Amino acid sequence: MIVITGASSGLGAALAKLYSEEGAELLISGRNEQRLREVSDPLSDKVQSKTANLSRADDIKALFDTCLHTPKSIIHCAGSGYFGALEDQEPDAINALIENNVTSAIMLLREAVKRYKEQAVTVVIVMSTAALAAKAGESTYCAAKWAVRGLVESVRLELKGSPMKLIAVYPGGMATEFWPSSGKSLDTSGFMSADEAATMLKQALVGTEHGYVSDITIARG
Amino acid sequence: MIVITGASSGLGAALAKLYSEEGAELLISGRNEQRLREVSDPLSDKVQSKTANLSRADDIKALFDTCLHTPKSIIHCAGSGYFGALEDQEPDAINALIENNVTSAIMLLREAVKRYKEQAVTVVIVMSTAALAAKAGESTYCAAKWAVRGLVESVRLELKGSPMKLIAVYPGGMATEFWPSSGKSLDTSGFMSADEAATMLKQALVGTEHGYVSDITIARG
Amino acid sequence: MIVITGASSGLGAALAKLYSEEGAELLISGRNEQRLREVSDPLSDKVQSKTANLSRADDIKALFDTCLHTPKSIIHCAGSGYFGALEDQEPDAINALIENNVTSAIMLLREAVKRYKEQAVTVVIVMSTAALAAKAGESTYCAAKWAVRGLVESVRLELKGSPMKLIAVYPGGMATEFWPSSGKSLDTSGFMSADEAATMLKQALVGTEHGYVSDITIARG
Amino acid sequence: MIVITGASSGLGAALAKLYSEEGAELLISGRNEQRLREVSDPLSDKVQSKTANLSRADDIKALFDTCLHTPKSIIHCAGSGYFGALEDQEPDAINALIENNVTSAIMLLREAVKRYKEQAVTVVIVMSTAALAAKAGESTYCAAKWAVRGLVESVRLELKGSPMKLIAVYPGGMATEFWPSSGKSLDTSGFMSADEAATMLKQALVGTEHGYVSDITIARG
Repeated sequence: MIVITGASSGLGAALAKLYSEEGAELLISGRNEQRLREVSDPLSDKVQSKTANLSRADDIKALFDTCLHTPKSIIHCAGSGYFGALEDQEPDAINALIENNVTSAIMLLREAVKRYKEQAVTVVIVMSTAALAAKAGESTYCAAKWAVRGLVESVRLELKGSPMKLIAVYPGGMATEFWPSSGKSLDTSGFMSADEAATMLKQALVGTEHGYVSDITIARG
Repeated sequence: MIVITGASSGLGAALAKLYSEEGAELLISGRNEQRLREVSDPLSDKVQSKTANLSRADDIKALFDTCLHTPKSIIHCAGSGYFGALEDQEPDAINALIENNVTSAIMLLREAVKRYKEQAVTVVIVMSTAALAAKAGESTYCAAKWAVRGLVESVRLELKGSPMKLIAVYPGGMATEFWPSSGKSLDTSGFMSADEAATMLKQALVGTEHGYVSDITIARG
Repeated sequence: MIVITGASSGLGAALAKLYSEEGAELLISGRNEQRLREVSDPLSDKVQSKTANLSRADDIKALFDTCLHTPKSIIHCAGSGYFGALEDQEPDAINALIENNVTSAIMLLREAVKRYKEQAVTVVIVMSTAALAAKAGESTYCAAKWAVRGLVESVRLELKGSPMKLIAVYPGGMATEFWPSSGKSLDTSGFMSADEAATMLKQALVGTEHGYVSDITIARG
Repeated sequence: MIVITGASSGLGAALAKLYSEEGAELLISGRNEQRLREVSDPLSDKVQSKTANLSRADDIKALFDTCLHTPKSIIHCAGSGYFGALEDQEPDAINALIENNVTSAIMLLREAVKRYKEQAVTVVIVMSTAALAAKAGESTYCAAKWAVRGLVESVRLELKGSPMKLIAVYPGGMATEFWPSSGKSLDTSGFMSADEAATMLKQALVGTEHGYVSDITIARG
C-alpha cells in the first residue's frame, strides 16, 4: 500500500493516477473532500481516499489508522505556494504557508517515524527546488521549503540504522493549479506538467538490495 | 538607536548591556514584561523597553512605532529551542517552536523591510549553527533555523541595490537559560557565556565605506 | 552514441555493460589500455574504446575526435580516491588525486561545452556523496569532489538557455576496486555493487519533453 | 608570531601592514621575491619574509622551519584568479589556477596540521565568496574555492578535540591587482580596498575563553 498526501491536485494527483493504473493499493489524502473525490472516483477500487488537515497531529493519526497494514511507501506531496516581495506579503497568508508546508511536513514525518521506524517503509518528501536555493520574490516559500529540508536531513541522522528510508525530492515549477492558487501569475506554458513530473519521479524512485536513489531533483528544460 | 529583540535573556540581554554601557540609545523587546524589566532596570535611561509577541504582525508594528527615529540597527535575537527525537516531540511544543523562530523572524523582517528598505539600516538576524547543518535530536529546531536562513538569503536578493543590509549570525550553543527552557538537559559548563558571545558579535559587526562583515559564525572551543 | 569515461572499472564499466546489452553505440575510455580492453572485449561490436588521460586537454580532443557524430550523452565516471588524516597524506598522491578528479572533470567538461553547447547533449558528471558533505579522513577527496560540484553548478549557469544539460550524480561508496586502490581498507561487504549503482543510475536518468532528472544521489542502505 | 601567505599583494600585504603597525612579529611569504621585499621593506624589523611556492610541500616545510617558535596564527591569503566562459579558458591557466588555490591550500594546511595540531594555533584560510555560491563566468575559480571549503570543513572534523582552530574567511571582490592579473577587466571603483578588508578581518578575528568567530564573510556594499 502507498499513502499519497496532497493528492487532490498537481503532482500528488498525477502520482495517484500512475500508481493506480498499475494496480497499486493506495490511500490518498487531501484537504478538500470534493476535489479529492474527483481524483479518486475515476481510479481503481483499490484506491481509498481520506481528507486530512496535515497540520493537525490528530488528522494524521486518523489517516494512518485507516491503513489496514503497514504502507510500503508514503509520498508526501502536500504543500502550497505564496509569493511576492516580503513587504507585500500578508500575515495570514504567511501563517497559512507555514502551516501547509512546514507544520504539515513535521507532523506527517513525526507520525510516520513514530509508527514505522522499525519497518522498511520509504517516506518520500516532495519539496521544491526552492528548498535548494534562495530566490527573490519567494522568501517565505524558500523559508518553508528550507525548513523541510533541514527536517529531512536531520531525521535521516536519527534514522541511522533503521530500515525506514527518507527520500528527498526537489521538483522545479510545474504547470499546475499551484500557481494560480499562489497568487503569482506567470506563463507556465513551457513548464513540465504534473504528469511528466510524476512519470519521472516514479521511474527514478528505484532501489536495489544494497542501495537506493535517495535524492532527486527534477528540473525544467 | 538600536532595536534588540529577545532581550529578556541570553545573547539579547547581554548585547543590551554591552551597547548600553557605551551609551547607545536602545529599544529592547521580549515577551515577558517582568524579565524584560529586570534586564532594562539596571541599564542607562537611554534604554527603552517594550513587550512584544513577534509572531504577531501588530505587535511588531507597535514596537517599531515606538522608535522616534529610524534605528541604525535591528538585532533580532528572539527565539527558543525544543529538542529530542522527532517521534518524542509534542505537537503543541512544535507549534510554539515554529512560531517563536520562523513566524517571528518572517514578521519582524517583513516589517523592517517595509519601513526601512530605502534607508541604511542594518538588520542582524541571529540564528544558530543549527541553521548550517542537520543534527540528530534537533530536527524541528534545525527545520526552524534552516527556514530563517532561507528567508535571509532570499530577502538579501530582494534588497539588491537597497542601502539596507542583512547580517546573518550563527552562534554555537551558549550556557544560557535557553537549554533548561528547551527541555534538553546537558552539561554547558564548557559552553561560552552569553556575555562572551555578545562581546565577540559586537566586535565582529564591523563595516567600512565599501564593505561589511555580512555573515558570522561563532563556535564553541 | 554514448561516451563513458572511467569505463575500465567500477561504475563506468558497469554502465558500459548495461548500455551495450541494450544495443547502444558506445565510446568508452580509461587510462589503462589492457583493463579497458578487458571491459570492451566481451561487449558488442558497437562498443569502441580509446585510452585517454583526461587531465590532458589533447587526450580529450582526440577522444571526442573519435566520435563520428555528436554523442547523445557523455557520462563522466573517471576519478580516483585517496584517504587518510590530512597530515598522513603524501604530496604526490594528493597531486594525483587532484589531477584524476578536478583537472580531468574541468578539461572534459570544457571540451564538451566547447563542442556541443549548442546541441541537445546530456553530460552526466558522476561525483560522490563526498561532494555533498565534509568527512573526516577524506579531506582531500572531499576537496576534489566539492571542486567538481562547484564547477558543475557554475557551468549550469553558463549554459542557461543552451540545449546542453548537465546532470549531477552523487553515489555513496560502492564495493569496487576503488577502495583497494585508494589505500583505504574497509569492509565493503554491505556496500552496493557497481552493477547495482549502474542499474539505478540508468533508470533514474529520465527526461520528458519539458523536464529531466538533473541531480541524483544514490545512497547505501 | 603570525605567518601570512600571499603577502606580496592584496589582502595579505594589507594584513602584514596592519599587524606590523601594532608591533606583531611576522613571517610573510609570497612567490615573487621583489614584490615581497617591496611589502616588507617599509615594515618594522620584526617582519621577516621568505619566498615560497606553496604548491610544493618542500617550500612549505622550509617556510615553517624559519619560525623560531610556534606561530600563534597562520593566515593563508595566497591564491589567484582566472575567469571567463569555461570553453574559453586555457588548459595551462586552469592548471595554474588549481595549483595556486587548491594544491597550495592543501599543502599548507597539511604541514600546519602536521606540525601544530596539538597546539593552540589558529589557521585562517582566506577563500572568497566564490567558495559559497556558483557563478557564471567563474566556473574553475568556483571549483578551486569550493575545493578549499571542502578541505577546511573536513579538516575541522579531523581536528575535533585539538586545540588548533580553523577559521574560514570569505571576502567578496576587492579592488586589488587580483583582477588585472586574472584577465578579467571590470570596474572595481566601488569595491572595497584590501586595506578595508584587512581592517574588518583583523577586527572580526576575535576569540574568548570558550568561543571564537570561526567563519567570516565580508561583503561589498
